[in-house]
Amino acid sequence: MSASRPRPRNSPGPSVDVLRIGHRPGRDPRLTTHLALAARAFGAERLLLHPPDPELARRIDAVRARWGGNFQVEGCPDWKKAIRAFEGPVVHLTMYGLPLSSVRRSLRKARRLLVVAGGAKVPRELYAIATYNVAIEPQPHSEVAALAVFLDRLLGPPGRHRWKGAQQRIRPSSRGKRIEARPS
Amino acid sequence: MSASRPRPRNSPGPSVDVLRIGHRPGRDPRLTTHLALAARAFGAERLLLHPPDPELARRIDAVRARWGGNFQVEGCPDWKKAIRAFEGPVVHLTMYGLPLSSVRRSLRKARRLLVVAGGAKVPRELYAIATYNVAIEPQPHSEVAALAVFLDRLLGPPGRHRWKGAQQRIRPSSRGKRIEARPS
Repeated sequence: MSASRPRPRNSPGPSVDVLRIGHRPGRDPRLTTHLALAARAFGAERLLLHPPDPELARRIDAVRARWGGNFQVEGCPDWKKAIRAFEGPVVHLTMYGLPLSSVRRSLRKARRLLVVAGGAKVPRELYAIATYNVAIEPQPHSEVAALAVFLDRLLGPPGRHRWKGAQQRIRPSSRGKRIEARPS
Repeated sequence: MSASRPRPRNSPGPSVDVLRIGHRPGRDPRLTTHLALAARAFGAERLLLHPPDPELARRIDAVRARWGGNFQVEGCPDWKKAIRAFEGPVVHLTMYGLPLSSVRRSLRKARRLLVVAGGAKVPRELYAIATYNVAIEPQPHSEVAALAVFLDRLLGPPGRHRWKGAQQRIRPSSRGKRIEARPS
């Protein structure tokens, strides 16, 4: 798995999977969509979605096909089983946890990480079975914000090499939208 | 305004207001709620909300009363007027923009910044009237993620002093939830 993420030699960093607990299929899907897009854009490898939502997975896969890379959304019927089966540290993002700065060094050494992003109401036992409970800020904020800042602080900006196979890419511009076709 | 944000002497940084365009009152309010909470938690001073949504403003104000600080949500009936009236650089967050690294130094020197966070469909003219169009990542992601990472990279973690007047605060913990009452 970790081989799928080429990084500068001096900062390999872990391969990161994200587990989303408390998704509500049928309600407005924008929040989980934002979480999935942030996970992808800031360098995670895949999103495990509990409960599964094939329609959302399909939409995110359409983004991947167009914009490149290998990010995947997988349905996760049993989140406890997924945590127990994961081979690596499990980081639960919660405003009640320890500052990221206090565990960042350990996390950087891991080969793989599972990051759990819950909603407002997460099952209490998650605090017990996670390897680390980590707060990005000890204030109410947002699992989308927490995940993005976590990935940014842990991994740094993803390089262009992450978006292999894209049908198109953005040409950064001071005004307007510039997109160029890109041979796969 | 900028005096309301005490910071370490060696890194004063600008006072940041956020303008949210494209909020949809009546639809699921979670996305704009997340944006408001992220703005507050990562160090912005206020959120201008277009169109206005007094119910959402009231809920965020309840968070402020409980968790401290001076963050405010203000209704913004005319976003163009708000941008034109703002005395300072206006940063539009868009995946089509220039990398933050290319303008960060200029932004750090400003006394005040207005950061515009749109949704999927922002008015085309925003690209023209913004001082800077800035991309956190040149990939589809999320305005909540973009705003949080922008504030984190620009301002760094907010200090405890930001949460004056809180009724309670979190005691960071490796397991579970610990909250302590805090005299105002």
